[in-house]
Amino acid sequence: MVRIMAVVTLTTDFGGHYAGIMKGVLKRMAPQVDVIDLSHDIEAWDVRSAAFVMLSSYSYFPEGTVHVAVVDPGVGSGRRALAIKTRRYSFVGPDNGVLSPAAEEDGVEEVFEITNREFMLQQVSSTFQGRDVFAPTAAAIASGRRISDAGNRVEEWERLVFGRSVGKGHAECEVVYRDRFGNLTLSLRGDDVNLSGEAELQVGGRPFRATAIRTFSDLEEGLGLLVGSAGFYEVVVNRGSAQAVTGAAVGSRVSIRW
Amino acid sequence: MVRIMAVVTLTTDFGGHYAGIMKGVLKRMAPQVDVIDLSHDIEAWDVRSAAFVMLSSYSYFPEGTVHVAVVDPGVGSGRRALAIKTRRYSFVGPDNGVLSPAAEEDGVEEVFEITNREFMLQQVSSTFQGRDVFAPTAAAIASGRRISDAGNRVEEWERLVFGRSVGKGHAECEVVYRDRFGNLTLSLRGDDVNLSGEAELQVGGRPFRATAIRTFSDLEEGLGLLVGSAGFYEVVVNRGSAQAVTGAAVGSRVSIRW
Amino acid sequence: MVRIMAVVTLTTDFGGHYAGIMKGVLKRMAPQVDVIDLSHDIEAWDVRSAAFVMLSSYSYFPEGTVHVAVVDPGVGSGRRALAIKTRRYSFVGPDNGVLSPAAEEDGVEEVFEITNREFMLQQVSSTFQGRDVFAPTAAAIASGRRISDAGNRVEEWERLVFGRSVGKGHAECEVVYRDRFGNLTLSLRGDDVNLSGEAELQVGGRPFRATAIRTFSDLEEGLGLLVGSAGFYEVVVNRGSAQAVTGAAVGSRVSIRW
Repeated sequence: MVRIMAVVTLTTDFGGHYAGIMKGVLKRMAPQVDVIDLSHDIEAWDVRSAAFVMLSSYSYFPEGTVHVAVVDPGVGSGRRALAIKTRRYSFVGPDNGVLSPAAEEDGVEEVFEITNREFMLQQVSSTFQGRDVFAPTAAAIASGRRISDAGNRVEEWERLVFGRSVGKGHAECEVVYRDRFGNLTLSLRGDDVNLSGEAELQVGGRPFRATAIRTFSDLEEGLGLLVGSAGFYEVVVNRGSAQAVTGAAVGSRVSIRW
Repeated sequence: MVRIMAVVTLTTDFGGHYAGIMKGVLKRMAPQVDVIDLSHDIEAWDVRSAAFVMLSSYSYFPEGTVHVAVVDPGVGSGRRALAIKTRRYSFVGPDNGVLSPAAEEDGVEEVFEITNREFMLQQVSSTFQGRDVFAPTAAAIASGRRISDAGNRVEEWERLVFGRSVGKGHAECEVVYRDRFGNLTLSLRGDDVNLSGEAELQVGGRPFRATAIRTFSDLEEGLGLLVGSAGFYEVVVNRGSAQAVTGAAVGSRVSIRW
Repeated sequence: MVRIMAVVTLTTDFGGHYAGIMKGVLKRMAPQVDVIDLSHDIEAWDVRSAAFVMLSSYSYFPEGTVHVAVVDPGVGSGRRALAIKTRRYSFVGPDNGVLSPAAEEDGVEEVFEITNREFMLQQVSSTFQGRDVFAPTAAAIASGRRISDAGNRVEEWERLVFGRSVGKGHAECEVVYRDRFGNLTLSLRGDDVNLSGEAELQVGGRPFRATAIRTFSDLEEGLGLLVGSAGFYEVVVNRGSAQAVTGAAVGSRVSIRW
């Protein structure tokens, strides 16, 4: 007998008890499920940060994990609810791009619009589909129901791309995440370019100098550029906040010359 | 053999590691228990918000769940500790009203004052009864001990009512919850009155106009009034904060004319 | 057959999704493990507060629990990673003192430097050893691997002592923790001295008067001194913030005369 013990992760911009309610729904419908909070610290309606959080986290979880994201400024407006089967995982959330970077990196196999009422609570509100649609769908998948039962297969869905361009001696990218220390993650990957020495930065139009380093303690003063734990370049300050120094926010344009 | 695998939820105003310590106690006394954070974001000593959080969440959990609330400004002052058996759940917490709206909605069967030392840690502090009394009691109930062993049955206990009155063309109510988006939940239920079109609001004595809507995206500008996911009216702003617009707080009086 | 179901606790200064990633690693390597958040509210790089959180929490968890702390300002700089076997628990974290007060109170048996690559992810970053070293090590220990396989035994490691001195009619100590209510925990234990009546305080050089009390509600006004739930004296205000009144922070020197 195989005992199903799937992991479900939650990434939301909720705060408060809303994630707790989703866990109640999951536990009621799939008692053996193991619910893990990935993050509930996402800024309200910040789809891009949530997409980056999922991208940098999903692959550390056991194969078969169901990753749920509910950052959903369009709830109730007719945007679709999606269930995505990728090579090793499932993803559940609104069709606004939040699932796209992680799902596409893992390899999308099939995308379904959630329309089957058996994948929802009996009453579906127009403001809390995390509780009424996404948690029940995750519970169904984690309990072994086929994801293809969720609804019709979808060919077109919303993709979110973290833009970047790399040329000889320069790169253009954007800030995709800010952590609580004020480190600024860029859409430039460590695989894109191997920086060393000094570089010139433009962050939101303002000029800075930064030193390419391997880790925080290599930096004596000023701004550093290092390949962070997610494989992306980060603008950092040793024991300080790069956000405070640069004034940047998620979405700020960054150009680098070296 | 029935394997007991009860869920215990925690709602506190703690922050920090205090909820973590309660989980340690629960795991030590009832290893199979599944502890779920309902909310630890309650404002310090805000019994009313905690009561609303429990009211709007409890019924989504599996039957038999033990719901624990520790928002306890009177800790150490002699207020009683309660264990309540309702139709489908158990509730554990201080006798200050925090358990009352949820327990009464589900249907109270019996209320006990926790006095049995077997339902407490060996040493009971005067400042952290969440650890010393409420977690051990929840562990005992979740492990299958009879709730009636907790102590003597109580007839009188503190009730908290979210006041409202509804007349022809007007209603008086109060703000019972504010979420992180600044949405203001009122004590007026969607079942009380079916609003449509425009309404006049008085919030904390200041006049506003609001539009009755079904969901956030129906609102072009200004304040909206919608029946939120908990079944109560909420004053909202689409992608903005109704709290910032109105200056209201939990407990503010609200009157509506239509 | 003994079913291993160890508890692993996490104490970090991360915020965001970093703790979630650690849980993914733990679940992938040790599916039966029960991961409990002790605290992720530690101020950035505040090793002392994290050490106090562990000290005041560890003993409430089941015997055999693996306690992990990742407050790690020196990550990537060559500071060692430790796995400590104490009388009843294991502790995993950086060699910066964060594990020391709790481990020493429980009774240190052996200390190992984590160098075995089987106790790490395949790729070890220089900025996120919580994911790459500490979570895999905790998973290995929780799965039943011998802690002595983690690496070489260490004799010298960093100890952190919460300093205090007690004389006739006076004591010198420091603030070791501030909770969300603004209560200030001191390094003075209830066992050190039995205060009653009035006392003179110097907090960060400023003079105050405080009343020794048993619990919050004994205090009519001003500052109180009580033995808190962790067994240490706390400077408190009834339904107010002692931090706001005194201007103190973690690390502030406090002297008491009575």
